[in-house]
Amino acid sequence: MPHRYFLQLSYKGTNYHGWQIQPNAISVQEVMEDALSKILREKIAVVGAGRTDTGVHASFFVLHFDTEKKIPAHLDIVYKLNSFLPSDIAVQKVCGVDNELHARFSATSRTYHYFITTEKNPFITETSHKYLKPLDVAKMNKAAQILFDYEDFTSFSRLHTDVKTNNCHIMQAEWKVEEKRLVFVIKADRFLRNMVRAVVGTLLEVGKGKLSLNGFRDIVENKDRGAAGASAPAQGLFLVDIEYPEESIQ
Amino acid sequence: MPHRYFLQLSYKGTNYHGWQIQPNAISVQEVMEDALSKILREKIAVVGAGRTDTGVHASFFVLHFDTEKKIPAHLDIVYKLNSFLPSDIAVQKVCGVDNELHARFSATSRTYHYFITTEKNPFITETSHKYLKPLDVAKMNKAAQILFDYEDFTSFSRLHTDVKTNNCHIMQAEWKVEEKRLVFVIKADRFLRNMVRAVVGTLLEVGKGKLSLNGFRDIVENKDRGAAGASAPAQGLFLVDIEYPEESIQ
Repeated sequence: MPHRYFLQLSYKGTNYHGWQIQPNAISVQEVMEDALSKILREKIAVVGAGRTDTGVHASFFVLHFDTEKKIPAHLDIVYKLNSFLPSDIAVQKVCGVDNELHARFSATSRTYHYFITTEKNPFITETSHKYLKPLDVAKMNKAAQILFDYEDFTSFSRLHTDVKTNNCHIMQAEWKVEEKRLVFVIKADRFLRNMVRAVVGTLLEVGKGKLSLNGFRDIVENKDRGAAGASAPAQGLFLVDIEYPEESIQ
Repeated sequence: MPHRYFLQLSYKGTNYHGWQIQPNAISVQEVMEDALSKILREKIAVVGAGRTDTGVHASFFVLHFDTEKKIPAHLDIVYKLNSFLPSDIAVQKVCGVDNELHARFSATSRTYHYFITTEKNPFITETSHKYLKPLDVAKMNKAAQILFDYEDFTSFSRLHTDVKTNNCHIMQAEWKVEEKRLVFVIKADRFLRNMVRAVVGTLLEVGKGKLSLNGFRDIVENKDRGAAGASAPAQGLFLVDIEYPEESIQ
């Protein structure tokens, strides 16, 4: 019987072609599998809680992996992983879990933040989207509220993906105004590929005055991806939380 | 009679060989002179409030320059400069000042912050120094207090510089403990070359238990640069404020 572990990590996505392993491009998943395989001296495959695209960041990410042998407590695997991994990936925690638990399928919610800087700031060019013109944030918040009226988000999905349904249960969707910064917070049980960036891009059209609230509603209602706004740039997007049933992890 | 301007800017120092122009290496000063010369169609030389070394950042920096012609209000020079400059340099303000005013010699104080992260954090690798082992911050603060008893900081100065005196009047010197982060705040009328990083490096020796408070005092007192600790790494250092006499600028 293999031993299953959950691993909590964070990564800056700038230098990666997203989470998922792919040929001829470096991914966070590949780097994590290499590090774990090396340190545990066993070929390790990891399953992530979701995918992030090229350039998207995660301040909170969870993966699971199985080992043949239990990881000995004296190994201090968190310290060893952090020493081995590059500076743009950090591990916070590794803990044994029930073999039924799955990083992706057991997750009950994901939360993303999308950061927009409203000034030129040399320190956050890789971690936010710069937009210097005026935005009607109150209207963007009204449009965000419309998301709660729907479950099918085909309009904000990448075409031709292999998921069985485009239904998501939106739990939170709001713009917060901070000094020189806007943050869009969105929480749902699941997200479709590219969905957050498509939602943000379309809400920005509302904020710029190019799309009315009714127009926004029509886009969601008509399930027409072509009608939605362009995806907002990757560097503003952070996966910031993933929830699991309370009893399963501490 | 030329027209003198003060310009407030910020820059991420990672990709620059410091503020000051030098042959065969890119500097912030050179980039600023090129941008101003291009936009004002006149050869512009700039004088900075101080120098920062390779990899050191400034969230607040001031330079002055003179022009033959007054900058017309309709030019919107801040917007033009920010469009022209790379993403790691931003201009906040340009304002006309009295010709007597000098970015370097009129400054009455400079404030630096030095950031130490006490966890591996993928998002701040270029803007903080990582130190994961325990540090006795209370003792580091006691040592910092010793700085107030002295004016001559030869011990923390680079050798063979051309300054006439090594005297500085320290106005603030303290470590602040934040979540997963330490910040050293130091304010003085002036600083010697490399001084803040040498002070931080030596205070870290105190925090590690390798140097006593009396040992720290001896180093300052003996004016022996060789006795001080190694300079703390550049990427943790930020110039964060420069003060001028109140009537001179708004």
